[in-house]
Amino acid sequence: MQKNKGVLYLIPNVISDNTELSVLNNQIKYYISKINIYFVENIRNARRYIRKVNRDIDIDKIIFISIGKHSKLDINNDFILPIVSGDNVGIISESGLPCIADPGFDIVRVAHDLEIKVVPMVGPSSIFMTLMASGLNGQNFTFHGYLPIDKKELKNKIKQLEYISKKNIQSQIFIETPYRNMKLFQDLIKMCDNETYLCIGAEVTGKEERIITKKIKEWKLLPTPKIHKIPSVFILLS
Amino acid sequence: MQKNKGVLYLIPNVISDNTELSVLNNQIKYYISKINIYFVENIRNARRYIRKVNRDIDIDKIIFISIGKHSKLDINNDFILPIVSGDNVGIISESGLPCIADPGFDIVRVAHDLEIKVVPMVGPSSIFMTLMASGLNGQNFTFHGYLPIDKKELKNKIKQLEYISKKNIQSQIFIETPYRNMKLFQDLIKMCDNETYLCIGAEVTGKEERIITKKIKEWKLLPTPKIHKIPSVFILLS
Repeated sequence: MQKNKGVLYLIPNVISDNTELSVLNNQIKYYISKINIYFVENIRNARRYIRKVNRDIDIDKIIFISIGKHSKLDINNDFILPIVSGDNVGIISESGLPCIADPGFDIVRVAHDLEIKVVPMVGPSSIFMTLMASGLNGQNFTFHGYLPIDKKELKNKIKQLEYISKKNIQSQIFIETPYRNMKLFQDLIKMCDNETYLCIGAEVTGKEERIITKKIKEWKLLPTPKIHKIPSVFILLS
Repeated sequence: MQKNKGVLYLIPNVISDNTELSVLNNQIKYYISKINIYFVENIRNARRYIRKVNRDIDIDKIIFISIGKHSKLDINNDFILPIVSGDNVGIISESGLPCIADPGFDIVRVAHDLEIKVVPMVGPSSIFMTLMASGLNGQNFTFHGYLPIDKKELKNKIKQLEYISKKNIQSQIFIETPYRNMKLFQDLIKMCDNETYLCIGAEVTGKEERIITKKIKEWKLLPTPKIHKIPSVFILLS
């Protein structure tokens, strides 16, 4: 008799500290009780998160495997062997939804190759919550991840995004490393057309959440937004 | 003394029937108790949904305004007047997140013009849950809404999507009216390159949820997926 394969669960994390009770749903608490092995970015944070979501879990019986930048994942031994043997496996991101602007998609790809069931959970995403609340086009949009840092490349990229946005009525979404947010904001103000809409979503789901959409010419007249070192999402529509 | 303006809340709906308890979070129940006026696609469905989420609401005191295809929204009287007078306003979509592949963004845009706070809630989205679970690129993706129906235009569009996808390593996401899903699947199988990945997410969050990623050449060898009249999301990566 062939043993059933395990399931790969994609577990969202909170975006803002101490919002577990308000932004997460009951399903997550339930599914966490069924998982033996987790792929996570930071093991200590993941342990703390799981304990917060479900205090009944015996956390010392769970195996955590790092998929951080410098870790070496052995996909055969760490993932394939246990999941085809029937272990349920979870992926948790440091913030928001796993596999969206976050690592994990290579593990999911292998799961599909092995015909393993992949189950995503509902959770917060600063990208999608900013888009919802932007008032910009949610019928046609692109997420680019990070834009180039080099000034000339950045300028070319922004001009290209404005062109595509105008041609396709398409919202252009991107992010930046939080300590470079102010720099990016200033570059956008300088490089974009006055009539282009810019939405900034900062501290999404947090107490200081603000999601604001203005034309570039309007942003120029306002005090600079306080987004230095604050996780933020940017959306352009030309 | 100036009266405070109201807040515009964006309230997610469930995707699958009777999943309120598992996929929605506590915040939604709480915020629903603070809203006087709702913009909705279908008033009867919205009333039923609110009663399911929060039984303590006196639903007869709430004003519902239709933003369906054939309704005429008077943005000044229906929205601006009450919200600047301090009423809290909500937008609920028929399924999933408001303003994403769904109406409502024009109301949100006006809210930004009036400097009214816009607060999005966490909820299910078949688009984003399929993307998370696809194993395809979640660092760079475009959502296109519907593709053209005309066969020649569709073929050109698919070729264009494959080209962009390959060039930018960008996932291409789209949807179809459920009764045309099978037709679209068959066209994709015929028109796409054998090496292109196609992910189909069907009945997301439902009991029969299945999210499956295969190369076109692999789909060709499998039984046709059962997606006729089943809400589905399609993702290509070339």
